[in-house]
Amino acid sequence: MPRQIRLNAFDMACVGHIQQGLWTHPRDRSTDYHRIEHWTGLARTLERGLFDGLFLADVMGIYDVFGGSPDAALRGAVQVPLLDPAVLVPAMAAATTDLGFGITCNLAYEQPFLFARRMSSLDHLTGGRVGWNIVTGYLDSAARAMGFDRQMAHDDRYDLADEYMEVVYALWEGSWADGAVRADRAGGLYADPALVRPARHHGRQFRMEAIHLCEPSPQRTPLLFQAGASERGRRFAATHAECVFVNGGPAPAVAALAADLRARAAGRPLQILMGATVVTGRTEAEARDRLEDYRRHASVEGALAHASASLGIDFARFGMDEPVGGAESQAIQSNIAGLQRAAGGVLTKRWLIDSFILGSRQKPLVGSGAQIAEALIGLTEAADIDGFNLSRTVMPEGLEDFVDLVVPELQARGAFKTEYAPGPWRQKLFGAPRLLAPHPAAAARHPG
Amino acid sequence: MPRQIRLNAFDMACVGHIQQGLWTHPRDRSTDYHRIEHWTGLARTLERGLFDGLFLADVMGIYDVFGGSPDAALRGAVQVPLLDPAVLVPAMAAATTDLGFGITCNLAYEQPFLFARRMSSLDHLTGGRVGWNIVTGYLDSAARAMGFDRQMAHDDRYDLADEYMEVVYALWEGSWADGAVRADRAGGLYADPALVRPARHHGRQFRMEAIHLCEPSPQRTPLLFQAGASERGRRFAATHAECVFVNGGPAPAVAALAADLRARAAGRPLQILMGATVVTGRTEAEARDRLEDYRRHASVEGALAHASASLGIDFARFGMDEPVGGAESQAIQSNIAGLQRAAGGVLTKRWLIDSFILGSRQKPLVGSGAQIAEALIGLTEAADIDGFNLSRTVMPEGLEDFVDLVVPELQARGAFKTEYAPGPWRQKLFGAPRLLAPHPAAAARHPG
Repeated sequence: MPRQIRLNAFDMACVGHIQQGLWTHPRDRSTDYHRIEHWTGLARTLERGLFDGLFLADVMGIYDVFGGSPDAALRGAVQVPLLDPAVLVPAMAAATTDLGFGITCNLAYEQPFLFARRMSSLDHLTGGRVGWNIVTGYLDSAARAMGFDRQMAHDDRYDLADEYMEVVYALWEGSWADGAVRADRAGGLYADPALVRPARHHGRQFRMEAIHLCEPSPQRTPLLFQAGASERGRRFAATHAECVFVNGGPAPAVAALAADLRARAAGRPLQILMGATVVTGRTEAEARDRLEDYRRHASVEGALAHASASLGIDFARFGMDEPVGGAESQAIQSNIAGLQRAAGGVLTKRWLIDSFILGSRQKPLVGSGAQIAEALIGLTEAADIDGFNLSRTVMPEGLEDFVDLVVPELQARGAFKTEYAPGPWRQKLFGAPRLLAPHPAAAARHPG
Repeated sequence: MPRQIRLNAFDMACVGHIQQGLWTHPRDRSTDYHRIEHWTGLARTLERGLFDGLFLADVMGIYDVFGGSPDAALRGAVQVPLLDPAVLVPAMAAATTDLGFGITCNLAYEQPFLFARRMSSLDHLTGGRVGWNIVTGYLDSAARAMGFDRQMAHDDRYDLADEYMEVVYALWEGSWADGAVRADRAGGLYADPALVRPARHHGRQFRMEAIHLCEPSPQRTPLLFQAGASERGRRFAATHAECVFVNGGPAPAVAALAADLRARAAGRPLQILMGATVVTGRTEAEARDRLEDYRRHASVEGALAHASASLGIDFARFGMDEPVGGAESQAIQSNIAGLQRAAGGVLTKRWLIDSFILGSRQKPLVGSGAQIAEALIGLTEAADIDGFNLSRTVMPEGLEDFVDLVVPELQARGAFKTEYAPGPWRQKLFGAPRLLAPHPAAAARHPG
């Protein structure tokens, strides 16, 4: 029996997420991103397809590297305008029962006491279906929005992140004992004060003494996701993450990254999910026609605006076949290195356009439902991963096609569940709703 | 024809909001505060009753003044545990079409760029039904949670607030022109870069240079509420607020406060809403029985824990009939002065218990639907106010009773609408969806 594939939809509360330009397709509904029905409808489609989660990206600044201005990003709606992903979640949770919701939040600019309350609130309201993609940001434009001249250095951001995690674990795990809430009407006792204590932290970056404002939620700490590929990012992921996103690429390179991450996690279970773009149809020919149709609406300028910000390189300054390299930030360096490997050594603007247009830094998977199912099963084996983050194409038909055509073929091959497992998101994936030793959050748990 | 009464329900995402102890009543459902269905059900009830809004209080710390510890607050669930109110709103909006949602947010600890995005996101997702109750906080426990030893001085907090408003107006009003979004599929043009500019602020407390991440929402700036009663608080309200909450009290005192606020606003329209607690029934006798039944579940310890934090006075140290006075903070001084006036000059613990138990710093209104309607109409005239903020009693029956018994009596007397006005919340209340001159937000509007 093949391994069980995990599936997340990868999306963002904006018009253009990864596949730039597809909002111009006549059947695309991405411009409804600010309507609540757009999101509740998407959540219902994903739950019909037994997706594990909807994963929402976020960024706290604007893409202004390409041509040295935000103009291309604004013209093409490249991740701007962009809503706060956190506030979308409870409405989608009310429309579903089992789908998980992962939200990206950059800890560099969020007060940990308030952030911890927001995530606990979401975990309560969703019945334990919330996850957090921990990011530290990479945009100077975000730093300027927050009153700084530029962002912190890459490794300093991860040091800050390690300390931030200590603070939020102290709140989520350490402030309230499991038995603290009695809700005893006859005795007039809601919580036992002996089982609630202030979380205390006196560190280099943060200082706090506070009782967490929320009683323990189903998962306490939300399911933790991370996507760093740098040396320091992998070290952080090995300590904290439960699920790791990796970019697509040649299977042996992904397998090597997966093996490295698992070795660093030293026996603690990790689920590794790869970015993928799928275009399917009732037949291979229909899928290929659909790809060609989609491609006609893709935006080269949008793809370059996006890639320029992601890599810290202004592609407006390069010729199509010039070798590209060299950016200051280490986070961005690891992106560039990954693309150089994917491109076979030399990264060019031509290769980039080709692989970013309707790809996820790699070519899309195109074929009938059966062909896609076979390809995904093969990739999980070859790259030694647990599943995929599927990027948005034409919305919602891309996901509806996947649910209708690919999911049944995965199920027929025994590679995908036919019903949801019970309980909170972490329990569905790892068998227990709360974090367990040796994860550092477990050590912060209230002993009562 | 009597003036049209505005009605908000005043609630909080916690077990015990103002009427402490009522969660122990066998019919009360406040302990469901962490379930999304609790909130969508409440929103539907309010919309059935044509309420203007649901107003959600918030506080960013714990009540630890009474007896010098948080124990009484924890035992009685006095505003702890407490969820983030912002994330509740879109689920309630999806369950309704016209109800407004006012959320309290303490600007002292929220990064303005991210806060502005969150509010714009809510305004988009609700179709322009979001309001912001601007508060600056009053708890040292909140300051300690954020890494400070104590909160800023009272007037400094308002100076910070004035500058904060400049920053968020620049983002909400000034960054995107009304015509910036073209969403032109054929031309591949989402937004016209010539009509989008960075909001720039270089002040004493804040520094920012950033394009707002959200395109203009229906109201741009959310409907603005404020509740400060101090000299500095009134000055702030007169500049920024559109709706002002005032505590209940003798009608002439409220009328004097209302007149002072309107005079300071210098012709800019203000809606003034008074806190009130209502217990009704099919007959006066049934209402009085209900009050007695509710009173048996009220908590004196909870009321004192709440009042001690609100006033900065540890009531554990006072005898029942000792005169009470003297706290350090000016915000809290204005609370104490208000209560001293309400108590006829001398504030005592006995008076406080009597007026806080099932009151809103005043006695509850008790009677049949017709009696309550007459009393509310009389109060709007006598106190020269626009409406009421009704505090939660036994949940949900207290509001269901109000909707079923009082609303029809108000309507029969021509004092309450029989259908919602069209458009965003601000348009329903003031006739236009956006802030107009002389409000300072209008001066920040993008000229394009």
